[in-house]
Amino acid sequence: MDLDSAGAARRLMARLDAFAAFTDEPGKLTRLYLSPSYRAACDQFAKWAQAAGMRVRVDAVGNVRARYEGKTADAPALMIGSHIDTVRDAGRFDGNLGALAALAVVEQLAENGVRLDHAIEVVAIGDEEGVRFSAAMTGSRALAGQLSATAMQAKDGEGVTLDQALTAFGCDPARACACGAKGVAAFVELHIEQGPVLEAKGLALGVVSAINGATRMQMTVNGVAGHAGCVPMQLRRDAVAAAAEMILAIEARAKAEADLVATVGRLEVEPGAINVIPGLARFSLDVRSPGDERRRRAVGDIDAAAAAIAARRNVEMAMQPIHEAAAYVCDARIVAGFDRALTDMGLPAFHLPSGAGHDTMVMGALAPAGMLFVRCAGGISHNPAESITSEDGALALAALTRFAVDFRG
Amino acid sequence: MDLDSAGAARRLMARLDAFAAFTDEPGKLTRLYLSPSYRAACDQFAKWAQAAGMRVRVDAVGNVRARYEGKTADAPALMIGSHIDTVRDAGRFDGNLGALAALAVVEQLAENGVRLDHAIEVVAIGDEEGVRFSAAMTGSRALAGQLSATAMQAKDGEGVTLDQALTAFGCDPARACACGAKGVAAFVELHIEQGPVLEAKGLALGVVSAINGATRMQMTVNGVAGHAGCVPMQLRRDAVAAAAEMILAIEARAKAEADLVATVGRLEVEPGAINVIPGLARFSLDVRSPGDERRRRAVGDIDAAAAAIAARRNVEMAMQPIHEAAAYVCDARIVAGFDRALTDMGLPAFHLPSGAGHDTMVMGALAPAGMLFVRCAGGISHNPAESITSEDGALALAALTRFAVDFRG
Repeated sequence: MDLDSAGAARRLMARLDAFAAFTDEPGKLTRLYLSPSYRAACDQFAKWAQAAGMRVRVDAVGNVRARYEGKTADAPALMIGSHIDTVRDAGRFDGNLGALAALAVVEQLAENGVRLDHAIEVVAIGDEEGVRFSAAMTGSRALAGQLSATAMQAKDGEGVTLDQALTAFGCDPARACACGAKGVAAFVELHIEQGPVLEAKGLALGVVSAINGATRMQMTVNGVAGHAGCVPMQLRRDAVAAAAEMILAIEARAKAEADLVATVGRLEVEPGAINVIPGLARFSLDVRSPGDERRRRAVGDIDAAAAAIAARRNVEMAMQPIHEAAAYVCDARIVAGFDRALTDMGLPAFHLPSGAGHDTMVMGALAPAGMLFVRCAGGISHNPAESITSEDGALALAALTRFAVDFRG
Repeated sequence: MDLDSAGAARRLMARLDAFAAFTDEPGKLTRLYLSPSYRAACDQFAKWAQAAGMRVRVDAVGNVRARYEGKTADAPALMIGSHIDTVRDAGRFDGNLGALAALAVVEQLAENGVRLDHAIEVVAIGDEEGVRFSAAMTGSRALAGQLSATAMQAKDGEGVTLDQALTAFGCDPARACACGAKGVAAFVELHIEQGPVLEAKGLALGVVSAINGATRMQMTVNGVAGHAGCVPMQLRRDAVAAAAEMILAIEARAKAEADLVATVGRLEVEPGAINVIPGLARFSLDVRSPGDERRRRAVGDIDAAAAAIAARRNVEMAMQPIHEAAAYVCDARIVAGFDRALTDMGLPAFHLPSGAGHDTMVMGALAPAGMLFVRCAGGISHNPAESITSEDGALALAALTRFAVDFRG
């Protein structure tokens, strides 16, 4: 099949620039779920999809859903998409790349008059980032039939509920929990990596093996505060020195296992005076792994190591759970399909886990699901400096198209 | 010489309790320099000194100075004292113990009709803590002839200058810089340890070998912030992990050398979010040692160790000086005199450095100077829980009296 993928890739990059103009904050890209700029983006997306001969509708939670039929009516569909909401002051590729690339896949088929055995459902998902309401992934949860009635009462910063916002947007919130997709054979998502791995490996593309599960803990170390001049080193029960040793133990444990990461992102000490030995240290722990059992084992090991350090230093240590999310292991057939697409293109079929959450992990409850990552400059994301090269964009679109064409439901 | 030191010790402990009633804040002991409660304390102190036959005056900076003549008029004087200002919500022993014990030494002599070859000058020093004005040790600096004219313009929290406060107190600030003591053969000070060393050694008393010098630094570690999920351990330039390694290197360097202490009392990380690898860590370093050269060497070693850690972790490290103070090595004859007093009493002549600053370090510029430390419960000071036992108080008074009697100018 000879599709003009070079032209399609140029159009995709140009559309990503144009699409970034749909923003709630002039001069920045901030496109919150169900905002006026989100409405404008939906309308533009729908217009492009209609021009490609797709049947388009906005569903009960504001996802844009566009269907390109296969050779037979009601054929099972390959659903392709990503989110079109953004964080505040966002980059233009996070989410939008995957949604517009899905559209570009169908446009190439339509322009060449190609019908596949399966249908393709393109979806521009409404809320992945969770910036406006307290809940995230509202769009994919609705698609996967996993949205609960209580989620409709989530409020934004102005006190507007999701229910009210949907009504104002022209949706029927009463149908939100029942708007799950039907007849979906698989879901795939193209996304920027948001990390530095592909860049470090010198690779444009990578197949996502799993979306990591996460454990978040609050760690507290209670020592004894004292005069920085008067308490000899041997008599100290220094909370910050104990915390420092724990932080290095956390780092060492994570480094000892491939694909596992552990982060201490918050750290405060008290009383926090230059001439007082800290009596208290509080820090956060975030552990992620593609394997839930591996993650739980790592958290257990960290707990034991921190407890041993605390005992040796005669301080008290407490570890309190804040949050836990299971990993989603990408469907083996989807992974194999992306592997084949890359190999056919002469590219290495490199696998990596995703440290960040994505709609794909929710969609996995509906159908076999998987992701393709594109290298992003410096691993930078959630930032206006977020960028990919045109060459990488073209390779990503070509791989996604090849996957879609070769897909067998 | 048979002095009733048991009775004197009982009176001393009772007076420490009574003296704690002179406070600016009912229910707490807070006696700021030149405050109404400070005035009341001075008056009471002067009354007790007069009753012991001493010549008493309040000098131009509000120190109470009381002279007990020796066998001949104008004999060189042993000056004994400590401060009677306190921190907010203070304990009753810090400073006050040394001032009231000095008085008790003379009272024992007077009650037994004893005159020594040398005079004794008892001094209740006005400002050591530096709580009210931005400068500390105003009283001892004036006694040592080291008070500068600019110090008189230091302001308190209400904008009142030291000059104005002294005038209101009834002093003549114009004479403050010229009120240095004359004819002082030596200065000694009894003080609570404010640390846990004597308690850990099971000793009531210790001879101070030196008052430690101090270096304070601000350390900054610049790494690269990143997504806690997306950046693998091997690609991180984590500022907090680097800081943790430096904190342990600081602790190890201090532990490797007797009498040296190093403290990280303040520590902040940025951006400080649970799911973001810290890009920046800032922490304070406080290094103290009885030897200035040893302290400088330790700071140099810490700088080198931190730089090596930063280089290995590919982060940037900067160390910026905030404050430096030289150590005061206590006069060898004073130390030997205290050693003799303790030995004569059958106590070990244990030496320890002082990690906190004291009037003695300033008085060392005027005359040979030294200190005796008394064990305090749990090393706790600057706190209402500060305490010493009556037994230890009695031993301290006996040792100080013995020193004064045996002193040879």
